[in-house]
Amino acid sequence: MTARIAVPLPKAYLLLNHGPTVLVSSAHGNRRNVMAAAWNMALDFDPPKVAVVIDKATLTRELVEASGEFVLNVPARQQAALTLAVGTQSGREVDKFSIVGAGATAASAVGAPLIEGCLAWLECRVIAEPHIEKTYDLFLGQVVAAWADPEAFSNGRWHFPDEQRRSIHYQAGGNFFATGDTFEV
Amino acid sequence: MTARIAVPLPKAYLLLNHGPTVLVSSAHGNRRNVMAAAWNMALDFDPPKVAVVIDKATLTRELVEASGEFVLNVPARQQAALTLAVGTQSGREVDKFSIVGAGATAASAVGAPLIEGCLAWLECRVIAEPHIEKTYDLFLGQVVAAWADPEAFSNGRWHFPDEQRRSIHYQAGGNFFATGDTFEV
Repeated sequence: MTARIAVPLPKAYLLLNHGPTVLVSSAHGNRRNVMAAAWNMALDFDPPKVAVVIDKATLTRELVEASGEFVLNVPARQQAALTLAVGTQSGREVDKFSIVGAGATAASAVGAPLIEGCLAWLECRVIAEPHIEKTYDLFLGQVVAAWADPEAFSNGRWHFPDEQRRSIHYQAGGNFFATGDTFEV
Repeated sequence: MTARIAVPLPKAYLLLNHGPTVLVSSAHGNRRNVMAAAWNMALDFDPPKVAVVIDKATLTRELVEASGEFVLNVPARQQAALTLAVGTQSGREVDKFSIVGAGATAASAVGAPLIEGCLAWLECRVIAEPHIEKTYDLFLGQVVAAWADPEAFSNGRWHFPDEQRRSIHYQAGGNFFATGDTFEV
């Protein structure tokens, strides 16, 4: 398992502020799943909240609705093929953990697992808003625990250690952007 | 004014898919404003929808609520100082268009202006959801027209022409990431 340090909750929004694509992991009973989500964002600072789109057709949707929990995992560039794979196959048909080699470890506050090798993790409890869930596939969550690989994020700042451990931003097809140069104005 | 070409509406989500920070422009009566928003995302493909967080304290909030319209402008790296400035000052106290030199031109379908020099523009009409607007400062919009600088985006793909005309991703303080390398898996 990647080393990880706790991120203070009021700093958790910084893990998503730059708009990375995430992996949404979920579990209920003896089932678990992972999917990719470019459509995610921070929603509040403290207590931290997030928003993410989870399509009705997905197994993730079923597990998130049943458990009321999910984890947003921030994958590294070296996990881009995995990210594409879990974004294009259905957990109803295949065990995505086994086909993509997505190692997983237990979270601290929710039943959904943490995907190994990611750069950061936000453990979330669903804030029930049935109307927007049904109408827009839009789910809101409160972040109840947050973690980061200390080589990539610490003291409220990202500092990617190498090109393969930068966060990624999905475009379309199999195309991504890596998070690029940092600069100050 | 930057050259611009129409982006077909079913491709509009691609302008936001990689998670750039945007400028939200708004207008009502003879007042107009612009603010920065890292917390934005695509919400649907066709008809395209978006989600964006607009704090209660902002003039933008007042103008968006009064007009039912806004534009999401995707700024370039060369506009990062402008982006920071409009993100840290209030339109209640200053005319942000004049202080930051944000040139503006008329949109096609909404009253909010298009900020000159940006890479892309999404003209949006608010999808009224009063409960989530009040509770989470969360606004949903339907994209009714979309535009891009053809040097930066065409045929459904970003192709930034130089380092200063890449999209940007806000971190905190005055720190941003540029959108980085594109790669395929």
